[in-house]
Amino acid sequence: MEPKHQVVILGGGFGGLAAAQKLKRTPVEVTLIDRRNFHLFQPLLYQVATGSLSPGEIAAPLRGVLSRQKNARVLLGEAVDIDPEAKRVILRDGDTYAYDSLIVATGSQTSYYGNDSWRQWAPSLKSVEEATAIRHKILYAFERAERAATEEEARAWLTFVIVGAGATGLELSGALAEIAQETLRHDFRKIRPQEARILLLEGAPRVLGVYPEDLSAKAEKLLTRLGVEVIKGVMVTNIGAEGVTFKRGDSTESLAARTVLWAGGVTTTPFGERLAQRTKAETDRSGRIKVQRDLTIPNYSDIFIIGDLAHAVDEKGKPLPGVAQVAMQGGAYAGKTIGARVGGKQQARPFHYFNKGDMAVIGRAAAVANIFGVHISGWPAWLIWLFIHLMYIVEFQSRVLVFIQWGFEYLTFSRGARLITGTAATDSVTKPETLGNIGDGR
Amino acid sequence: MEPKHQVVILGGGFGGLAAAQKLKRTPVEVTLIDRRNFHLFQPLLYQVATGSLSPGEIAAPLRGVLSRQKNARVLLGEAVDIDPEAKRVILRDGDTYAYDSLIVATGSQTSYYGNDSWRQWAPSLKSVEEATAIRHKILYAFERAERAATEEEARAWLTFVIVGAGATGLELSGALAEIAQETLRHDFRKIRPQEARILLLEGAPRVLGVYPEDLSAKAEKLLTRLGVEVIKGVMVTNIGAEGVTFKRGDSTESLAARTVLWAGGVTTTPFGERLAQRTKAETDRSGRIKVQRDLTIPNYSDIFIIGDLAHAVDEKGKPLPGVAQVAMQGGAYAGKTIGARVGGKQQARPFHYFNKGDMAVIGRAAAVANIFGVHISGWPAWLIWLFIHLMYIVEFQSRVLVFIQWGFEYLTFSRGARLITGTAATDSVTKPETLGNIGDGR
Repeated sequence: MEPKHQVVILGGGFGGLAAAQKLKRTPVEVTLIDRRNFHLFQPLLYQVATGSLSPGEIAAPLRGVLSRQKNARVLLGEAVDIDPEAKRVILRDGDTYAYDSLIVATGSQTSYYGNDSWRQWAPSLKSVEEATAIRHKILYAFERAERAATEEEARAWLTFVIVGAGATGLELSGALAEIAQETLRHDFRKIRPQEARILLLEGAPRVLGVYPEDLSAKAEKLLTRLGVEVIKGVMVTNIGAEGVTFKRGDSTESLAARTVLWAGGVTTTPFGERLAQRTKAETDRSGRIKVQRDLTIPNYSDIFIIGDLAHAVDEKGKPLPGVAQVAMQGGAYAGKTIGARVGGKQQARPFHYFNKGDMAVIGRAAAVANIFGVHISGWPAWLIWLFIHLMYIVEFQSRVLVFIQWGFEYLTFSRGARLITGTAATDSVTKPETLGNIGDGR
Repeated sequence: MEPKHQVVILGGGFGGLAAAQKLKRTPVEVTLIDRRNFHLFQPLLYQVATGSLSPGEIAAPLRGVLSRQKNARVLLGEAVDIDPEAKRVILRDGDTYAYDSLIVATGSQTSYYGNDSWRQWAPSLKSVEEATAIRHKILYAFERAERAATEEEARAWLTFVIVGAGATGLELSGALAEIAQETLRHDFRKIRPQEARILLLEGAPRVLGVYPEDLSAKAEKLLTRLGVEVIKGVMVTNIGAEGVTFKRGDSTESLAARTVLWAGGVTTTPFGERLAQRTKAETDRSGRIKVQRDLTIPNYSDIFIIGDLAHAVDEKGKPLPGVAQVAMQGGAYAGKTIGARVGGKQQARPFHYFNKGDMAVIGRAAAVANIFGVHISGWPAWLIWLFIHLMYIVEFQSRVLVFIQWGFEYLTFSRGARLITGTAATDSVTKPETLGNIGDGR
């Protein structure tokens, strides 16, 4: 018997998983390799960071998702290199996997625009670990404010800065406003959580820069109504333990804030760089690899790149955005193309992205959406957002409960997953240089 | 106005929380100090370790629980010392808190019986962090078995040893058996998870040594039916990376097992030791402080010790067990006594422990219970166990969902929270010395 066509997929995110599932009935052998053993529903990660959901509720074990797909196997491992001539990928442990077709869906990582030292003060929202670290940081700030020695110190602990007013920045600042105003309302004795300041800093002249202008304006209005201070047209020049420094026009301002969250840009990963080198592929400014209209790399028709790592363009030559929809449709397209090739046919049509709509959520009953050119905001947009996320999550069975839980927490204003975990939970309370002397507690 | 009577409670577990809540209507000021910001429903921690529940689902933020109790405040901090003459506790950061009455409910920690080096190979189930570490260890073992180079190596990754056949040992081994036989059944391509060996080692001649003999026998039968190998009367002499060595009679046996979990005994904490020193209190063999019939320390009628740190005795002089019931009733008693004293009365009655029943759960529809001398096992015991845990958890609102989720997972045999998180998730896959060469993966 002839050995089956080997499809190796790197990454089990939206793109990689869609590709694997598309190949379900194709006579190939699929090997999905991911560093993690789970698929993460990234659009809800901010809910983990803000204590509404637990990590397990927005993740599905990859093995579980693909357990019934007999032509697919899942491997825990990290690709670090590739030999495109020998058609092999190399994992960190030295193992190599040969492919006939390769689908690269390894995504992006957070970019601090060359200021990597900011990372330690301003975590970003990319992984489950970062989400729980952010949760820790937020809840801990209120604890510290409660025990602060001076008014000034308490104020710094109650000032939260989110850098970047894209979708993630909006989600985080909206959720933070709700935590301060509703969730923790009755929980403290010295401080009033409602007095927390939440600032959203953005370099561009408006929030949600990629959206139509009226929706940007609407989103800003919704944010302001929640109590978020939106500051546009600023350039962050420093982030440290004490807060943020930024330029606004000609003046430089410093803000004492103990909690800074980074919702800035993304860049390529080390593996993405290596892949570009090995295949001599062109990259764009943020390191994404420029692919052809069929999502393959020039000269390597057996290597597909999908999702955030790909710089793909639409019919008009406009680059496609790094969103889940593009990744999923790209994955399905790659899977279909491989299926056609294995069947001896040629995939004639180039990849066409069908945009079902863009939406950003700000808070309870607050969202903006652009669906086939129809601009929606407020309650209706939020309901659509809820419905779409519900539909997707339901596919990964048993996650229905996420939405029951949401409903429950929505009604009660509570947040169930308010845990400060990790080794730092107590240690960091006890740094004498920042705590000061509170006296005997009377 | 006279300053109010200050009650300081150390520890927000079952005992400390019960004490705080009992003082709700007493004209005192309550300060609850805990290292963590949440109350943990410890009896379900094994479900976090085995991937059924997320940490957030079995924890309630202490601030949330006490937010409506206006005479109580919560502080994140760790008590490290006490000055019983000056009536002050000292926190790690140097802050001191004065008390008029002190309730110590700081619990116990895992004891490796003097072999602390075993800890790194055999985690125990005390904290949320340990539970997620155990989850990681278990799921990771199956991943490694799938990628093992030799049959022998795969076998070692598929051998799980639980040391100690108390309630925790039974819960863990029963849940592990279900994971291997049901949850992961279809998830792998090379290995058959059903072939995993799960061994439960116990030093005593029977499991659940504190239960009546017929229930021990019944529990062992239920375990065996689930596929757990129970080995009694053995003494573990070593635990390392490769497995466990133990003595059985005159012979010494070694077992190649990559996953060893510790469900052994408990001992006092550093703070408990310090407290005993400072108050010159007597301790028992495992370091618990011997308290009087009113749960105070001799010569210090203002210091109550409740829960796992206390060695309290019943009417017949028999020591009370370290279970949640004893802690909760002790906490309520201490709260009531303080209330009486503040009201100018004397609490006349000594602490009386009312045992509502003991139960241990092994798996789905498998448990044993001793309720007012009536011995129950199997389905009925499991239903009672479920009901009692449901009742308790419902009190901490919104956690109702835990049980809906259970019901769901019970029906579908799935486990939603199967995440391998933490920095080690990929790094440890890649240790070349243990992985071996798998070739090109074809």
